[in-house]
Amino acid sequence: MNTIEQQFQEILQNREPKNLYDPIEYILMQSGKRLRPAMVHMAADLFNGNPDQVQHVAAAFEMLHNFTLIHDDIMDKADVRRGQPTVYKKWNSNIAILSGDALVALALLELLKTNCPPETVRAITEIFARIGLEICEGQQFDLDFETMEMVPIEQYVEMIRLKTAVMFAGCLKSGGLVAGADAESLQALYDLGIHLGLAFQLADDVLDVYADSAHFGKKVGGDIKDNKKTFVYLKALELADDAQKQELKALFSTVPADEQAKFEQVKSIFDAVNVREATEKEIDRYSRMCMEDIRKIHAEEAKKQQLVTLVRNLQSRDK
Amino acid sequence: MNTIEQQFQEILQNREPKNLYDPIEYILMQSGKRLRPAMVHMAADLFNGNPDQVQHVAAAFEMLHNFTLIHDDIMDKADVRRGQPTVYKKWNSNIAILSGDALVALALLELLKTNCPPETVRAITEIFARIGLEICEGQQFDLDFETMEMVPIEQYVEMIRLKTAVMFAGCLKSGGLVAGADAESLQALYDLGIHLGLAFQLADDVLDVYADSAHFGKKVGGDIKDNKKTFVYLKALELADDAQKQELKALFSTVPADEQAKFEQVKSIFDAVNVREATEKEIDRYSRMCMEDIRKIHAEEAKKQQLVTLVRNLQSRDK
Repeated sequence: MNTIEQQFQEILQNREPKNLYDPIEYILMQSGKRLRPAMVHMAADLFNGNPDQVQHVAAAFEMLHNFTLIHDDIMDKADVRRGQPTVYKKWNSNIAILSGDALVALALLELLKTNCPPETVRAITEIFARIGLEICEGQQFDLDFETMEMVPIEQYVEMIRLKTAVMFAGCLKSGGLVAGADAESLQALYDLGIHLGLAFQLADDVLDVYADSAHFGKKVGGDIKDNKKTFVYLKALELADDAQKQELKALFSTVPADEQAKFEQVKSIFDAVNVREATEKEIDRYSRMCMEDIRKIHAEEAKKQQLVTLVRNLQSRDK
Repeated sequence: MNTIEQQFQEILQNREPKNLYDPIEYILMQSGKRLRPAMVHMAADLFNGNPDQVQHVAAAFEMLHNFTLIHDDIMDKADVRRGQPTVYKKWNSNIAILSGDALVALALLELLKTNCPPETVRAITEIFARIGLEICEGQQFDLDFETMEMVPIEQYVEMIRLKTAVMFAGCLKSGGLVAGADAESLQALYDLGIHLGLAFQLADDVLDVYADSAHFGKKVGGDIKDNKKTFVYLKALELADDAQKQELKALFSTVPADEQAKFEQVKSIFDAVNVREATEKEIDRYSRMCMEDIRKIHAEEAKKQQLVTLVRNLQSRDK
């Protein structure tokens, strides 16, 4: 088995034109968390999947994930990601559109390299396509929310399910598929991904307000600055009294001259309504569902510990 | 078998969010030439493919084609296509990026509906991915050419091979695959698509200058206005004497106040060097290669006449 970086270099070797492939190499070689390929490998390992085959699936999903980042950064006009200029900023939006498109095709080609029964390849390809579609749906809901005054919490959860959780679910299920897991375990892996993804995103929403900026890696308070209707914001509105509600809504309809002052004001309301506690309770609820999903997987207990650790780490992550 | 419009309506039924799917419906329901799905069906019909299965492949390639149009129109800042506002113009570029992305995923899901041996589905999926990648490469070369002073003709031909011809080749080969064609016929179908695609694009380049505007459907002289280095332009440079060469290059480095005057000046040089004749000779050469490819396909002569007619129509098209 090669490292994922070795795989990427092999995939990109001798390709032209440079203006198409340089941005792809740039984003793939950045050291991200590599969470999604790790999930593919973990799930496959439960059923003794062959890492030489699994690695194609793992790389494909990491590439699909990076495609979504390239295009999201154009749409969100994001200048920095992982401490580096985004593709759209470093090159331009045309090149970012096109290299993102090419990355999807490369990802699919990588997936098809997997040497396993063709029905399995077909099933994983279907997951790949479905995830791709659902992430687009999630991103569009997210864009739609920007211009909505109120977003019901269940709609927000559905949005993050599509935008974040289905990718985790697809990675875990595909890892199981390539290793020949049984149907019940595949369903449990998928459900685990959904619950883990939801917990992951809610933890992200909390970190935006409460992270230790020394550890966090990105700017604390970015969501507040951008008036993003996160779970924390929507839950705070639910918990707030009328006066607090008015104040929060007013704060979230401005682009303030003094970012820090806005952050402090918002945070003081968040603190007053105990929204951190309420959100962490919700994260715990999803984490317990994850443990329940793990129990349903028919694999050695010792191997399943990896998944338990994964859930614990994401639950208590500080970045 | 359903019409392709019925298929599209079924695919798009009850999908949300509207801002994602409305642009997809808008572009898919426009009456284009439907050339690519026709090619899939023609190739499959040679080998008595089942139209109920073939239609999924045909729809998938038409969707992939429309995805490229949505994204190309953003990159080219094109306001009108098929006489209608482009998706990027009617909505905005974020929505165009995202609905294009979703359309690729939908196309792949449609492809996977084909009920044929899983090895065949895998082979067609690989063609689908490879075409997707090659079209991106072609588009990037095309963008790169904009800022190059000179483009060698063989690089231009390679660009249009990637941007236009591989899609034709992939459609024909996939039609053959789904109908169970033999390897030699599959190769001939692929080669036919390449040669047909090149002839098609060169005919397009000629039409930009010499079309009867009443029939053409788009504006004559668009490539000249945009200083596009088409085959006609590059070939004219090859045939021109030094004075004509200088004049052409000068004309192609301006955005003139008087479009019509520029068009007339360029056209008079094109006429003087007989570039129309030279390009039509090249189109004939590719058309003869098409006929040679058709000869190599192991199918009934009567059925192959459809392909011969297709080549003749594209060769002498007036729009």
